[in-house]
Amino acid sequence: MNDIQYQFVKKILSTSSHSAKEVGRAFAPSNIALCKYWGKRDEVLNLPVNSSISISLGNKGSFTEIKRSNKDTFILNDEIIDNQTAFSCRLSKFLDLFRSHCRAPGFEVRTKNNIPTSAGLASSASGFAALVLALNDLTGWELNNKDLSLLARLGSGSASRSIYNGFVIWNAGKNIDGSDSYSQSIDVKWPEIRIGIIKIDESEKKISSRDAMKKCVATSKKYNFWPSFAAEHLCKIQNSIIVKDFDMLGSTAEKNALKMHEVIRDTIPRIDFFTSETYQCLERIKSLRSNNVSVYATVDAGPNIKVLFLENELKVICKEFKKVEIINPFGEMNA
Amino acid sequence: MNDIQYQFVKKILSTSSHSAKEVGRAFAPSNIALCKYWGKRDEVLNLPVNSSISISLGNKGSFTEIKRSNKDTFILNDEIIDNQTAFSCRLSKFLDLFRSHCRAPGFEVRTKNNIPTSAGLASSASGFAALVLALNDLTGWELNNKDLSLLARLGSGSASRSIYNGFVIWNAGKNIDGSDSYSQSIDVKWPEIRIGIIKIDESEKKISSRDAMKKCVATSKKYNFWPSFAAEHLCKIQNSIIVKDFDMLGSTAEKNALKMHEVIRDTIPRIDFFTSETYQCLERIKSLRSNNVSVYATVDAGPNIKVLFLENELKVICKEFKKVEIINPFGEMNA
Repeated sequence: MNDIQYQFVKKILSTSSHSAKEVGRAFAPSNIALCKYWGKRDEVLNLPVNSSISISLGNKGSFTEIKRSNKDTFILNDEIIDNQTAFSCRLSKFLDLFRSHCRAPGFEVRTKNNIPTSAGLASSASGFAALVLALNDLTGWELNNKDLSLLARLGSGSASRSIYNGFVIWNAGKNIDGSDSYSQSIDVKWPEIRIGIIKIDESEKKISSRDAMKKCVATSKKYNFWPSFAAEHLCKIQNSIIVKDFDMLGSTAEKNALKMHEVIRDTIPRIDFFTSETYQCLERIKSLRSNNVSVYATVDAGPNIKVLFLENELKVICKEFKKVEIINPFGEMNA
Repeated sequence: MNDIQYQFVKKILSTSSHSAKEVGRAFAPSNIALCKYWGKRDEVLNLPVNSSISISLGNKGSFTEIKRSNKDTFILNDEIIDNQTAFSCRLSKFLDLFRSHCRAPGFEVRTKNNIPTSAGLASSASGFAALVLALNDLTGWELNNKDLSLLARLGSGSASRSIYNGFVIWNAGKNIDGSDSYSQSIDVKWPEIRIGIIKIDESEKKISSRDAMKKCVATSKKYNFWPSFAAEHLCKIQNSIIVKDFDMLGSTAEKNALKMHEVIRDTIPRIDFFTSETYQCLERIKSLRSNNVSVYATVDAGPNIKVLFLENELKVICKEFKKVEIINPFGEMNA
């Protein structure tokens, strides 16, 4: 168990109340970054180099149930996951931080994702967020959102954003103890926004975001320029959200994603998450724009594309991308 | 008449409708910048060097009535203003841009300000905004807010922000024709915010903001650093508005104002809008903060101080500053 992480957790839980349940349950949405988190300034505490902004995916995410047990058992989408897998090891290590606080040697964790796992659709974000929320429910800690976000961050950086619905900002913070690096909900609703998920390839990624990030920061010469680009994009995206300028939002988010992938491709040895289909799809989106369709792309550490558009373009998008899955982030169920 | 300005106006009015009235009437609020506009990249079109963010002062501002006439007559707070004054010349020059569009050789303009004129409380902002809104009412142009903001900007830069209530952002824009330099309403309400106006000195300023700005840009060595400070403050203020972090909002607004005055004091010959009372009052605000009162100051091109605080500190502020005038920017009348 990592002591720095444990002390971080202990501090947060020191003032919490305790009225335990048999089973803790929670849902957390997946999220898509409009200004990406890319690069850590602290690997142990998951502290980011740059601030990021995301939009949560409403009812697309992870539903998790947790029970105390004598040993760890992980059940993902109704399948028991072998304890020797990287997935289980990562979860057990995270749960190490909470065993003494929960007076449990182990946990049985059942998670259902309604998004494809490990295909660049940020299932670790919703997964760790749902796990922290479920622990909070199990134990009756009644933590506030800030603390929940801080804890989720220890599991996966982007999980700090999946604590909330709607637009979310994760301020990088400055403190070396990580106490000011948490996400907050943005107080703006934009009900007309739609996200379309275009699945290019659902197979397991050859390299995890986590590993790619680490190698990229260590070897990409272009990474030096990333923080200043990200700062500029963050400011523009904030601006576009507060004045509801969709074209500014979309074009900046697309620029941000393309810049991140440019930086990633500069990694030695080269990493490219895009497949030829990704490149083709990006061209189609560009050509739609030249026909006055206001649609923009963003791509995470994977080949799949997410398109951003407004409700009024729904028909055009569904016609153009036959298999697109439409998400309404501010839909009634998600507000 | 300035032809560049006239062509700018003509373009905006080319598509507007016309269903004229006898009298045009409008109110526009004054506004206080949280991230200040300081420095022009174009003197004729009033194009700013940096983007700015303000909060409008609700029902504090200018109420204007305008009628067609054979000659210009200006009545300010029930007093006829001599046509030879700088005030009248500036207004007549602005109205030159609209005479042919209104089929009127002159205008009778009656304005009432419920804020002190020319004491650094931005009466030219509300004045020109109310004048443009009143012209729009008189002529039936039915212009949208963007166009109203563009026109108000020609009268006074900060007037472009006084077209709206609440938080407002004026993006500096990039186009040399000024077509992308207008203000927009920020889609966030923050009903707990209060502004207190502490009048230090209501006498006419020795130097206008306009002249000070020009001289400062031309001679202050510190002006070179202003745009990058302003960009950083703009980003932080946007951030604090969207997550409702009052201490970040207040501390950044205060830093921004103090930085602007530092830059202004570097003008040759020196310009200092602060009086010794201004400095003393800033110290009192600092000492309140050291006693855990969340209150921050901002100062425009004048000696008067505006304090920012939340509703829950109202009693403390009124006790500390006996003559403070409290403004509720998101009050029922102003939403």
